[in-house]
Amino acid sequence: MRALRLIADWNPRIGYAPSAYEEETRRTYSGAKVWRHPRLELCQMPDPAPGSHDVLIEVANCGMCGSDMHMYEADADGYILYPGLTRFPNIIGHEFAGRVLAVGARVRTLREGDIVTVEEIQWCGRCVSCRRGYFNQCDNLEELGFTTPGAMAQYIAVDEKYCWKLDPIAERTGSVDLALTLGALVEPTSVSYHAMFVRNQRYLPGNYCVVFGAGPIGLAAEALALAAGCALVVVVDPSASRRGSAVALGAHHVLDPAHIDLDLALLELSRGRGFDMVVEAAGAPQHTIAPLRKSLNVDAAICYIGRSERPTPLPLEDYQVRRVQLYGALGHSGQGAFQNVIRLMASGQLNLRPMISAAVALDDAPAAFKRLESREDAKILIRPNE
Amino acid sequence: MRALRLIADWNPRIGYAPSAYEEETRRTYSGAKVWRHPRLELCQMPDPAPGSHDVLIEVANCGMCGSDMHMYEADADGYILYPGLTRFPNIIGHEFAGRVLAVGARVRTLREGDIVTVEEIQWCGRCVSCRRGYFNQCDNLEELGFTTPGAMAQYIAVDEKYCWKLDPIAERTGSVDLALTLGALVEPTSVSYHAMFVRNQRYLPGNYCVVFGAGPIGLAAEALALAAGCALVVVVDPSASRRGSAVALGAHHVLDPAHIDLDLALLELSRGRGFDMVVEAAGAPQHTIAPLRKSLNVDAAICYIGRSERPTPLPLEDYQVRRVQLYGALGHSGQGAFQNVIRLMASGQLNLRPMISAAVALDDAPAAFKRLESREDAKILIRPNE
Amino acid sequence: MRALRLIADWNPRIGYAPSAYEEETRRTYSGAKVWRHPRLELCQMPDPAPGSHDVLIEVANCGMCGSDMHMYEADADGYILYPGLTRFPNIIGHEFAGRVLAVGARVRTLREGDIVTVEEIQWCGRCVSCRRGYFNQCDNLEELGFTTPGAMAQYIAVDEKYCWKLDPIAERTGSVDLALTLGALVEPTSVSYHAMFVRNQRYLPGNYCVVFGAGPIGLAAEALALAAGCALVVVVDPSASRRGSAVALGAHHVLDPAHIDLDLALLELSRGRGFDMVVEAAGAPQHTIAPLRKSLNVDAAICYIGRSERPTPLPLEDYQVRRVQLYGALGHSGQGAFQNVIRLMASGQLNLRPMISAAVALDDAPAAFKRLESREDAKILIRPNE
Amino acid sequence: MRALRLIADWNPRIGYAPSAYEEETRRTYSGAKVWRHPRLELCQMPDPAPGSHDVLIEVANCGMCGSDMHMYEADADGYILYPGLTRFPNIIGHEFAGRVLAVGARVRTLREGDIVTVEEIQWCGRCVSCRRGYFNQCDNLEELGFTTPGAMAQYIAVDEKYCWKLDPIAERTGSVDLALTLGALVEPTSVSYHAMFVRNQRYLPGNYCVVFGAGPIGLAAEALALAAGCALVVVVDPSASRRGSAVALGAHHVLDPAHIDLDLALLELSRGRGFDMVVEAAGAPQHTIAPLRKSLNVDAAICYIGRSERPTPLPLEDYQVRRVQLYGALGHSGQGAFQNVIRLMASGQLNLRPMISAAVALDDAPAAFKRLESREDAKILIRPNE
Repeated sequence: MRALRLIADWNPRIGYAPSAYEEETRRTYSGAKVWRHPRLELCQMPDPAPGSHDVLIEVANCGMCGSDMHMYEADADGYILYPGLTRFPNIIGHEFAGRVLAVGARVRTLREGDIVTVEEIQWCGRCVSCRRGYFNQCDNLEELGFTTPGAMAQYIAVDEKYCWKLDPIAERTGSVDLALTLGALVEPTSVSYHAMFVRNQRYLPGNYCVVFGAGPIGLAAEALALAAGCALVVVVDPSASRRGSAVALGAHHVLDPAHIDLDLALLELSRGRGFDMVVEAAGAPQHTIAPLRKSLNVDAAICYIGRSERPTPLPLEDYQVRRVQLYGALGHSGQGAFQNVIRLMASGQLNLRPMISAAVALDDAPAAFKRLESREDAKILIRPNE
Repeated sequence: MRALRLIADWNPRIGYAPSAYEEETRRTYSGAKVWRHPRLELCQMPDPAPGSHDVLIEVANCGMCGSDMHMYEADADGYILYPGLTRFPNIIGHEFAGRVLAVGARVRTLREGDIVTVEEIQWCGRCVSCRRGYFNQCDNLEELGFTTPGAMAQYIAVDEKYCWKLDPIAERTGSVDLALTLGALVEPTSVSYHAMFVRNQRYLPGNYCVVFGAGPIGLAAEALALAAGCALVVVVDPSASRRGSAVALGAHHVLDPAHIDLDLALLELSRGRGFDMVVEAAGAPQHTIAPLRKSLNVDAAICYIGRSERPTPLPLEDYQVRRVQLYGALGHSGQGAFQNVIRLMASGQLNLRPMISAAVALDDAPAAFKRLESREDAKILIRPNE
Repeated sequence: MRALRLIADWNPRIGYAPSAYEEETRRTYSGAKVWRHPRLELCQMPDPAPGSHDVLIEVANCGMCGSDMHMYEADADGYILYPGLTRFPNIIGHEFAGRVLAVGARVRTLREGDIVTVEEIQWCGRCVSCRRGYFNQCDNLEELGFTTPGAMAQYIAVDEKYCWKLDPIAERTGSVDLALTLGALVEPTSVSYHAMFVRNQRYLPGNYCVVFGAGPIGLAAEALALAAGCALVVVVDPSASRRGSAVALGAHHVLDPAHIDLDLALLELSRGRGFDMVVEAAGAPQHTIAPLRKSLNVDAAICYIGRSERPTPLPLEDYQVRRVQLYGALGHSGQGAFQNVIRLMASGQLNLRPMISAAVALDDAPAAFKRLESREDAKILIRPNE
Repeated sequence: MRALRLIADWNPRIGYAPSAYEEETRRTYSGAKVWRHPRLELCQMPDPAPGSHDVLIEVANCGMCGSDMHMYEADADGYILYPGLTRFPNIIGHEFAGRVLAVGARVRTLREGDIVTVEEIQWCGRCVSCRRGYFNQCDNLEELGFTTPGAMAQYIAVDEKYCWKLDPIAERTGSVDLALTLGALVEPTSVSYHAMFVRNQRYLPGNYCVVFGAGPIGLAAEALALAAGCALVVVVDPSASRRGSAVALGAHHVLDPAHIDLDLALLELSRGRGFDMVVEAAGAPQHTIAPLRKSLNVDAAICYIGRSERPTPLPLEDYQVRRVQLYGALGHSGQGAFQNVIRLMASGQLNLRPMISAAVALDDAPAAFKRLESREDAKILIRPNE
């Protein structure tokens, strides 16, 4: 099959000593400290062979994600930007939908022809964290497209237990194509859903919500906030084109954080009472959540999705006085995020179609990576079988 | 001022012995066992005199509620149907909006000209239940329109602490009239909100919801379910005209419970997985929730609003096997129900305008009570100052 | 190895038509409608052969459970009393602790010599319920000792993912023997824990708790209530000897339900405010929870563990007025019940040693079943390797 | 009556401009920026005159609190250390118990002779925060002993709604004296209770808990953790004498944070899994919670009680990866904290008697303040009527 691989050199930075396990497996939790000179390669590879619990999927659409960009982009010293769990070379891509071509001997719930999307979190289902129901914190975590082969390829084999059927979307919209398009957005949307409704257990319809960052995760958060009945949804992003996307999806207000007193501006937008839900999807907490004080309503919940390596100075005194809670959120598995996102897409309450700015063939994927360097696009889909 | 009073005779049923406190105060928790021969009377009364914490309100709209009908209607022996806390004669009416005409000396947050709606639950704010935050379970409960003068009158005086401003609706819709109309629906809608989102702490957007009863409480529940992102909303009611109202508000499906296997029909509508949230607003639990078994999804929540005097046989074995929870819900005070409902009306996410079937002057109120005996109307508003 | 098997005849009652799947697999969800003439048999069987994910365990102690008795006891027509999921012949026994003798090739977290206890719920970890974290509601549920071979045998092979180490108990008490004894009580205690603290999310230390039923599940509930800081723990049981066990474990009060007004008696014991947590572990809800009205505090939680086939008439009006919630609870898997129970045993805060009334060798197990018919004993342990 | 007043001069720091309201009322939210040259004064004052909702209390015991010390102590420039809401001169003291001497005309639930303790948070019960049930965030907050007369006096008059009866303690222990002694500890203990069990909604018995700070709040947190079934309770404090107090109350381990890697030390004490509940009662978050990374278990909850003016750098990346939540917690009102603490004291599950290091007459109070400067004592009680 045709596939897009990312290749990089194992070349630990001076001062970083990989463990024996890292050396042996070439698998590291500290990608940016080890992998150098990343480059994309379109290549021909053997078709994947599904195991007894696996299904073989023909990939219809695979979205390009910020993490993909951070594996592709390098810093001044040539090291990749992505700081997390990685192993190269690897086929990348983890936001996808496709059609089941074949099923393993022990597969019970799927069959040939089913249309599905797949969790990126490859939880073991056996460790203590998984037994507690915290799959995103699996002790033996693998990540599809990071440590296991991803979906920027014609085919992929994955365990049935990570798959979710897209039939409800196809049936209610009458379009399998639409289901396979929206289906590629389920994974990133579920990351936002998990942070806002599974991690944050204080959400009430009618709440006021501010979303930091109008990249795909932030835009999905915005759309979810609207679908779930947030009565005021404000999106903050320094990029005018991204704010434009936020407006297109229905944001009540957008804010450019440059040259304003963020706390004061948000206080005013909330008519003096402050926001109930704060979603950090910008990865810049020192500039987004750190300044918030008066603009946090009593009992506000901060849902933290954006990654950031350095400690963030937070005004805990205000968190006390205002009864604030902060939830670290990662991943999308467990507690029905995928299922509920698919249901919301099927019912039409969550319309993320406007987020998709382009769809390209696999041969054009390297050019699309180049194009996305400017961060003008919201979401580009790759279609490996077109 | 002009007012509509309900008068009834203190005439305890044989076998019911009122307590000394009941005899002395003519205030009883067992209305249907005591009050006989109810009749409405349009009369002239002194204007209310607001105390230091009170505001004087000019009533713009006051909705007619099922409880009002049950105080007005009598059984074969002449006793009122309403079983609860009552004292007569009393001005009835508790779903209303109006304009502040004057404020008491210690009022801090309201001023002349403000437009407001008011909680029916008159909680003391001092007892142990109130101190726990459970205002609806106040140990010294009074109920506006039941034991204290209600709003089917030109004016009413109420403690500031029960009032909520309707400005957000007026500002976002640009219409004070609309705010004063929708404002009269905030109280019943908050009863549904409290049951579905405050009492039920397991709600997740994308859930499937079935509502029993398409009276005003049920219709409000339906509209809230849609606004909060329920991906499938089914309303069950034996009345064709009420099912019509449910369709007009956007229900995905309506069901006539007659001549069907309710459990099976709901199982099918949910594509075999069952419902996540069940709202009982029909007051007939033996016919609505009692039959539900397979149509309850794993982790389903039953929100019980409808009143019923007799014990209801429930299939607890299924509640075990399916991890079901049942929440008794009453009232609307506390935890922001009023505030959030007003916000949802302001944002346009909750449009209950179609629920209002008529608006009449106070002089026509007795005729409207007569008309509502057939239960064809969804919600009739009385306008005491027109 | 030596094992105790339960044998019964597949002989569906007149009027019960087994499904084709039931006929084919001889596995039914309706045990009491199918299995007849149960009898115990001590026999010699091949040692179990652990699969790649399994561990082979030498059983030290296996408790006799009420469910075991209900599979062993027959009604007037000769049918077993146990109504649930069963397949015979089968080695019974599911409350046990033992030592790991060997581990499969893919076992990661256990090794020879480890001392463990094991979940009875054999969840698949793959179905939609498991993916939501609701393992007890697994769509492909198997139950150890009911449909898969149990622990009243010298050895048992089980998947590593159901095992929990008892080391914390051994280390803090200094006794491996004690860990292997208390370890056999972890499973039933976790059933109570799951109902009281995982299902009931409103528990607060200082709450008042009433437990119905002083069998092993009820006694474990009592001990947990005390360990978790319930300030008043009342146990209700008609058997004087069982009430004696409750007293021995530290109950503040015990009640004989015969000849009293249960609601009134409980109201008085709670000093007029009512109970916050109600645990039904008697399997007789029509006699235990159905009468509770005034003795339920505002915001009370009813944790329903006891099985009952018939619908139970419940006073929903009181549940409304008092803001009551009812949680159906089944099983013990997920959300850390086993882990936390083991920790509480290790710290000494949960001392269930007094619950154990006898320990017998496997050859004496049939006699122990006979003896337990009188329900005088709290918990009898079987020691298959003594 | 005899009373202990704290006097200070209104002398705003250079650079701090009080608002007109502050100037007019001499009431400020920024005590340390305004009040200078604090001094204690024993004086004769008129007995308080209770209003219609008030009770007059004869103070039996009043604890000395860290906040009292911070109002009494000054920095190098002579300004008080306490940063919060204050008005002087004022009778200080807010942790107390006493006997009702007289009740106002509208008091319903208390009568002469009742023994009570009192909330320090003087919530209005009328503002939007109070109506949501968030009394500690009252928009019109007053604080007993800070802005209203406190309890280091023979008598005090307070609104009935802030009082809680101590009868359960007297009845179960048989000692009114003991009830009046322990009763003075209810307020600070309720601060810890509120943070650990009301704010933190993820607590499960068997959890591992680490408490930072072994002052009265921290020691109360430790005792509560033990009473509520924490299976491992570790207390961290740099003072050897305070660690001694922690040991006396039953801590499983105590740690001196000096010269150790705190994160590593805690990881080891938790057997490699990390802690589930972290209580910050040291007021030094940059040294206590900021370093925690690996020692936080998956799903850990950080309960933040300690005050700190400056932003605290927190490792949000770890909060994401480990699914951590942080709760700002302040106050003790609402949701039953006082009631449950009193119940736990009554049942004997919470024994804080060892925390009390001395009891002195009111005339000796100034000397006791002097003595407490060394922070050797855990809790000194003042007895104004001895």
